[in-house]
Amino acid sequence: MTFPSRVTLFLACIITLSANAQSPQQRVRQYRQTRETALMDEYRQFLTIPNVSSDSATIRQNAAFIMQMMKQRGIPASLLDGVKPGTNPAVFGEVKVPGATKTLIFYAHYDGQPVNPKQWAKGLQPFEPVFITAPVEQGGTIVTTYKSGDAINPTWRLSGRGSADDKAGVMAILNAYDALVKSNIKPTVNLKFFFEGEEELGSTHLGDILQKHQDKLTSDLWLIVDGPRHVSGKKVVQFGVRGDVNMNLTVYGPKRPLHSGNYGNWAPNPAQKLVNLLASMKNDEGRVMIKGFYDDVTPLTAREKQAMATVPNMEAALKKELGIAKPDGGGASFMDLMMIPTLNINGIQSANVGPMAGNVIPTKAEAVLDLRLVRGNDITRQIERVTEHIRGQGYHVLDHDPTDADRQQYPKLIKITTGAGYNAQRTPMDLPIAQEVIAAVQTTSTDPIVLTPTAGGSLPLYLFEKHLKANVVSVPIVNYDNNQHAENENVLVQYLWDGIETLAAIMQLK
Amino acid sequence: MTFPSRVTLFLACIITLSANAQSPQQRVRQYRQTRETALMDEYRQFLTIPNVSSDSATIRQNAAFIMQMMKQRGIPASLLDGVKPGTNPAVFGEVKVPGATKTLIFYAHYDGQPVNPKQWAKGLQPFEPVFITAPVEQGGTIVTTYKSGDAINPTWRLSGRGSADDKAGVMAILNAYDALVKSNIKPTVNLKFFFEGEEELGSTHLGDILQKHQDKLTSDLWLIVDGPRHVSGKKVVQFGVRGDVNMNLTVYGPKRPLHSGNYGNWAPNPAQKLVNLLASMKNDEGRVMIKGFYDDVTPLTAREKQAMATVPNMEAALKKELGIAKPDGGGASFMDLMMIPTLNINGIQSANVGPMAGNVIPTKAEAVLDLRLVRGNDITRQIERVTEHIRGQGYHVLDHDPTDADRQQYPKLIKITTGAGYNAQRTPMDLPIAQEVIAAVQTTSTDPIVLTPTAGGSLPLYLFEKHLKANVVSVPIVNYDNNQHAENENVLVQYLWDGIETLAAIMQLK
Repeated sequence: MTFPSRVTLFLACIITLSANAQSPQQRVRQYRQTRETALMDEYRQFLTIPNVSSDSATIRQNAAFIMQMMKQRGIPASLLDGVKPGTNPAVFGEVKVPGATKTLIFYAHYDGQPVNPKQWAKGLQPFEPVFITAPVEQGGTIVTTYKSGDAINPTWRLSGRGSADDKAGVMAILNAYDALVKSNIKPTVNLKFFFEGEEELGSTHLGDILQKHQDKLTSDLWLIVDGPRHVSGKKVVQFGVRGDVNMNLTVYGPKRPLHSGNYGNWAPNPAQKLVNLLASMKNDEGRVMIKGFYDDVTPLTAREKQAMATVPNMEAALKKELGIAKPDGGGASFMDLMMIPTLNINGIQSANVGPMAGNVIPTKAEAVLDLRLVRGNDITRQIERVTEHIRGQGYHVLDHDPTDADRQQYPKLIKITTGAGYNAQRTPMDLPIAQEVIAAVQTTSTDPIVLTPTAGGSLPLYLFEKHLKANVVSVPIVNYDNNQHAENENVLVQYLWDGIETLAAIMQLK
Repeated sequence: MTFPSRVTLFLACIITLSANAQSPQQRVRQYRQTRETALMDEYRQFLTIPNVSSDSATIRQNAAFIMQMMKQRGIPASLLDGVKPGTNPAVFGEVKVPGATKTLIFYAHYDGQPVNPKQWAKGLQPFEPVFITAPVEQGGTIVTTYKSGDAINPTWRLSGRGSADDKAGVMAILNAYDALVKSNIKPTVNLKFFFEGEEELGSTHLGDILQKHQDKLTSDLWLIVDGPRHVSGKKVVQFGVRGDVNMNLTVYGPKRPLHSGNYGNWAPNPAQKLVNLLASMKNDEGRVMIKGFYDDVTPLTAREKQAMATVPNMEAALKKELGIAKPDGGGASFMDLMMIPTLNINGIQSANVGPMAGNVIPTKAEAVLDLRLVRGNDITRQIERVTEHIRGQGYHVLDHDPTDADRQQYPKLIKITTGAGYNAQRTPMDLPIAQEVIAAVQTTSTDPIVLTPTAGGSLPLYLFEKHLKANVVSVPIVNYDNNQHAENENVLVQYLWDGIETLAAIMQLK
């Protein structure tokens, strides 16, 4: 659609006339302040729709809900769908602004990580959002008295899967636009909206979608709204992301679980084998011992180094908050460690612990590794380095459960499967339109904006470069302590409100 | 009670007169063959009562069921109870045989290991026993057509928690006695029965029970019916057991789960710390690297070495069946490895694997270790060696979750708790009454009986020595491939029948 003309906005003008003396940011804020209950009711409803990426039925309910949100805000919406059977659709929308010469496309994703409700704190359910007074890990409690229409304390958090990562992006983008429309402020740029539905699967089909719909998806800049603001609370503009891929390892023991007394010392224990293997990969300082693991890292540019030097150092506060006496990294800084690849054990399991533990030699042991990649790393090469290391520990590598013949032939058997993944991406810091974004965000904050060459987290941004030759920067809006990807995920209410103001400012790019 | 007099058995004599020309073993067998359905119906009913040691309500239902079984067989039964609040009762019974000068006390335990129904094969439930044609791991299927009264194929297995470990002992002991009574065969020894209810908890209160009831529990020999026959299928008499204790380890990471991208390389990962710790304990050959771990082992006597030399070597068959190309132990034999202590990872867990895995740095990582002890080891000393090793890896050891102060002070924190446990026990092989047991068992088998100085498994038999100055030997009856302590536990039907004959023979000790 085209941005509403002056004529159609006549009524809105009358209502908001008194506000016109205020700054655009003040008018956006006032708009939000008068509608907090309605905005939050809608967001809570959005969060009740389960959004685990693998469940295509509920994923499509989320897409339909977003289309409805867009329709209510006058944004024509459509599904970018059908590139391959089973692909979760992206939701697309577009607003043409008369006189605008640039086009910004705003990105967020509406799918979420898997949930294990048992791991969530008492009273919290992944898809039953409630307000909490603070993170539950810091003694926060549920605001049991809250009902729709009550005043919402901006220091509260709203809990639920996706509340921060990344339905918050969808919520803030659409309400930033709506705030401008309802406040009679004309964006300076044409706007496009792109909401992905399988980011947490590793954006399996994003490349296909971008390629198929490249005519629709042209822009001067992709503006990514995902991830947290700086740990200091300062707003941040990020120029890149790490790449990411998971490796699933399964080591095999006896074909049936064995009594640990009758077979102990003789039957190999797959949990012992797996811990020995994983220990060979990384030392107690957090240094990866795999040959060549750090070799391909592209050095930072002078401009990037300069930006890095201005990032506030929050390590002392983080150590206290997280209960960490000594970080990994052998003394390197938090930011320096973000500029190199990682190898992280996401999870490990063999048989049972706690009350369900039995005195057994288990049949298998499993671990999931997360590899983050930086500029210069290649996903295939990095996976091969880890695999080669595993071979070097005497393992025969399979892509399937072992057959009897495999078991008879090889003393050490491992199944390795890898998830979908992608390389890192980094945009030059001196790109003119990126400088304009920094300036716009700076208008909403008295603190200096934090500029980082890369986020710690990952998004498949390299696909935008590859398929669309697009420029990309990220403007994260949520609190850093949001438990994303884990139990008790939450978003700080004030940061949602701030996010609306930040994104509205970007829509008025000079 | 006293064994039934000739007069009261007059009717039974008439009925079984034709059988009197047969051997006692044949008569016991015939008794069983005519009553297989009834015996198995009762046993299946017994197995439907959940028996996880920690659930005192269902444990008492099991005890009541056993009392009823004993009453139906004319054995006066009572609970040895109330030594401490919450103690699971032992069930006791006694039969005095006119003219007998020796007393044997038969032991089995009716409690079972914890269950995780999700780990059981499709169609198998821990407390819904069904017949299977073979181990499910070897392609066995459920005999869905079976109904009470049908002929029972002796090559079938009956599935369920406790089916082998160790309700099978209760079943075979009571039916062996019943078979003698109903076949009009007088035992040659006074009989006592002792069925324990917290063996799988580490026999926490067994010492208290033995001490409180020592007058009732005098005997010439404790006859332990628990554990499997030899892997070759041969019957076995064992002269000792290993000791056992569990250690639960919890290593701590950040206070809340962290995004692996935003904090990876900086926040210590407790799963990595734990795998590094466990890897430092044991190498890939299965050798424990903890200082002094193998130091205290009492050497075998000449008689024990001689018995060991005659134990059939089943390693080739086991390797094939279990899918093991190369056993642990650096070339030492299965039996030699049974004569030294073990350190086994029963289970390990941190966060999630599989579809529920997220890209997180977990807050903690847990493992359960099982330590088996042999003659010469002391439980306290062995635990301290492991703990000292952990300290040597830089850990500060706690017995509680860390406080904030602990977290700020110590880079590496671990919580260690230990379960109830006990030392090993070994009876001299040349003990006269033990020789009589061997001879009795030998009457039921054309194969030579396998004699082993110790079982691989554990029972708190040292308590019988300590509190009662008793002699102890074990006569295991179930199949070795019974999945005891794990999912899909099962007992081979023929071995239940054999067990009845074996124990009936021991009740007729010369």
